[in-house]
Amino acid sequence: MSQDSEYSEGDLRNTGMSLKHDREWDYELDRIVEAVEERDATKVGLQFPEGLKRRGPKVADDIRELVPDDVTVMLSGQPCYGACDLDTFLMKRTDVFVHFGHSPMKNTDKVIYVPLFSNVDVFPIMEESLDELADPDEDPHVGLVTTAQHMNRFEEMKSWLDERGYEVHTRRGDDRLTHEGQVLGCNYASADIDADQVLYVGGGKFHPLGLAMEHPDKNVVIADPVNNVVTVADTEKFLKQRYASVHKAMDAEKWGVIFCTKIGQGRWEQAQEILDDNDDAYLITMDEVTPDRLRNFDMDAFVNTGCPRITTDDGPQFHKPMLTPGEYEIAVGNKPLDELSFDTFHGTW
Amino acid sequence: MSQDSEYSEGDLRNTGMSLKHDREWDYELDRIVEAVEERDATKVGLQFPEGLKRRGPKVADDIRELVPDDVTVMLSGQPCYGACDLDTFLMKRTDVFVHFGHSPMKNTDKVIYVPLFSNVDVFPIMEESLDELADPDEDPHVGLVTTAQHMNRFEEMKSWLDERGYEVHTRRGDDRLTHEGQVLGCNYASADIDADQVLYVGGGKFHPLGLAMEHPDKNVVIADPVNNVVTVADTEKFLKQRYASVHKAMDAEKWGVIFCTKIGQGRWEQAQEILDDNDDAYLITMDEVTPDRLRNFDMDAFVNTGCPRITTDDGPQFHKPMLTPGEYEIAVGNKPLDELSFDTFHGTW
Repeated sequence: MSQDSEYSEGDLRNTGMSLKHDREWDYELDRIVEAVEERDATKVGLQFPEGLKRRGPKVADDIRELVPDDVTVMLSGQPCYGACDLDTFLMKRTDVFVHFGHSPMKNTDKVIYVPLFSNVDVFPIMEESLDELADPDEDPHVGLVTTAQHMNRFEEMKSWLDERGYEVHTRRGDDRLTHEGQVLGCNYASADIDADQVLYVGGGKFHPLGLAMEHPDKNVVIADPVNNVVTVADTEKFLKQRYASVHKAMDAEKWGVIFCTKIGQGRWEQAQEILDDNDDAYLITMDEVTPDRLRNFDMDAFVNTGCPRITTDDGPQFHKPMLTPGEYEIAVGNKPLDELSFDTFHGTW
Repeated sequence: MSQDSEYSEGDLRNTGMSLKHDREWDYELDRIVEAVEERDATKVGLQFPEGLKRRGPKVADDIRELVPDDVTVMLSGQPCYGACDLDTFLMKRTDVFVHFGHSPMKNTDKVIYVPLFSNVDVFPIMEESLDELADPDEDPHVGLVTTAQHMNRFEEMKSWLDERGYEVHTRRGDDRLTHEGQVLGCNYASADIDADQVLYVGGGKFHPLGLAMEHPDKNVVIADPVNNVVTVADTEKFLKQRYASVHKAMDAEKWGVIFCTKIGQGRWEQAQEILDDNDDAYLITMDEVTPDRLRNFDMDAFVNTGCPRITTDDGPQFHKPMLTPGEYEIAVGNKPLDELSFDTFHGTW
């Protein structure tokens, strides 16, 4: 992108990012305070995703002002990257437990989910994205997906495309997802629609890259209102890394099979199947899957049955090849190389 | 230490370290297999400290050979630094749970503790340590302490000193400790004895530095049979760091109060006291206390009610001052600076 373009990649003018210091979020304090009263709660637990943790103290202050003095408010210090990642320790030990910024993965009375919606205007960047979509006269079919942060504008986005002559295809995906059109880092079932192109509206490339991997036949256009940039998802670099990891792992003898203990990331049967089939496979249980934690294990390669994005996005940081269960099947010769596909999570827990 | 000395610091000749690749440990497999049979177990969990994790697969192999095919053996991938640090997730989900390398902090039928004893010869380095101890004619009183790894030689060490004219003082400490003369990184009650000098026999400076901080009036001589070196514990650098952290924290307004959720590291009342007294204090709950996890919290300083060695030994790695509860009292002006002391843990859970 040239220096002369109105917005270069990473330019934060007129984006939600540039407003972050004075942005007003709606933390739904009334709902929280009501629950404290109803349950006669003495312990309140708050869990924020990484990017919002610094707002925790202010939210705690606001709650403390509105509840009796004997209520203890606790902030979860555990890393948090999704609704799959509830702090169950804190949840079990508090009367009211609030999870901010992610939509429910499973309905439960134990957790109050507070969605946090972006206030960035998505339509200027959607306007720009029309250059990358097929002209509606040629191909009017387009899928539309976004993340939990932009869900509050989803119907408007749909109408906007509709007004411009597109036939917009959306679906809810499966029961891991709360909303129609919603994507997660590990689930793109909402893009299983009858269209050759999908418009993703949202920040960053994390979600659309997964989407393009899961649906390699579709053209995935990224309208990023946070970084003010339109791109088309390109999985080439991503795929090369995956093939490289699979190839390296083909010589492995000793395999570490990771079972993730996070509530929404456990795939016990998949782990068990690998173990049953391979005498040189060892089951390792852990919550956070990090390079440091695996360095001390004397393994030739790892297969991660937990979050696929740790495997694919952080993969090169591990000291030994780290594969998804599907990639493992290729590396040990149970499947041909051309069956390499993106690892997705379905269902809840 | 000069290049000409027989052993320089870090020289691994004739030490346990140099033998690590062919050392035979006794993993007490019979005891584990017996428990599997008695309990008709189908799930066995194994937890090793960091330095022994690479031995996990071999131990798993040995166990799998001796138990029925339908038994699943699992290795804990959680970090582990002590008996305070049981993998309770794995413990609750396995029929037999084995914790290697640490002595029991609390008696329980749920855990099989397998001690792992060093096979290094401690007497050559004890001989050298006599140069740093007072001559028995002048002061025969000496305390003797060691770690779980050398406990199997403790009575011999005692006799050895006794034969050389010393009156050896030992005690069990409190109920956090299993053995007479044992020290933990967070507990030096075994050195509460009537002697002005204490001989520590064991690897590294982690334990004796804590001991010297807890007992500043005593001369702590370190006989390190692993690195083949005798030194006297010097707390000056350590103390300077602590004073620097306390001084930096004196300007803090917002305090993060960490409650550690590890089974043997929770001090709820201490955390609650700080919160009750300080409106600008926020409770943060977490298991692993790491610089990464705290970076996202917008605090001016932290006080850690969990493992004191994270605070004192890893302190400089955190982006904001990290204090022990005692140091916090000094920083906020509740206590004078000269009351700075080492933070120790007592009791179990």
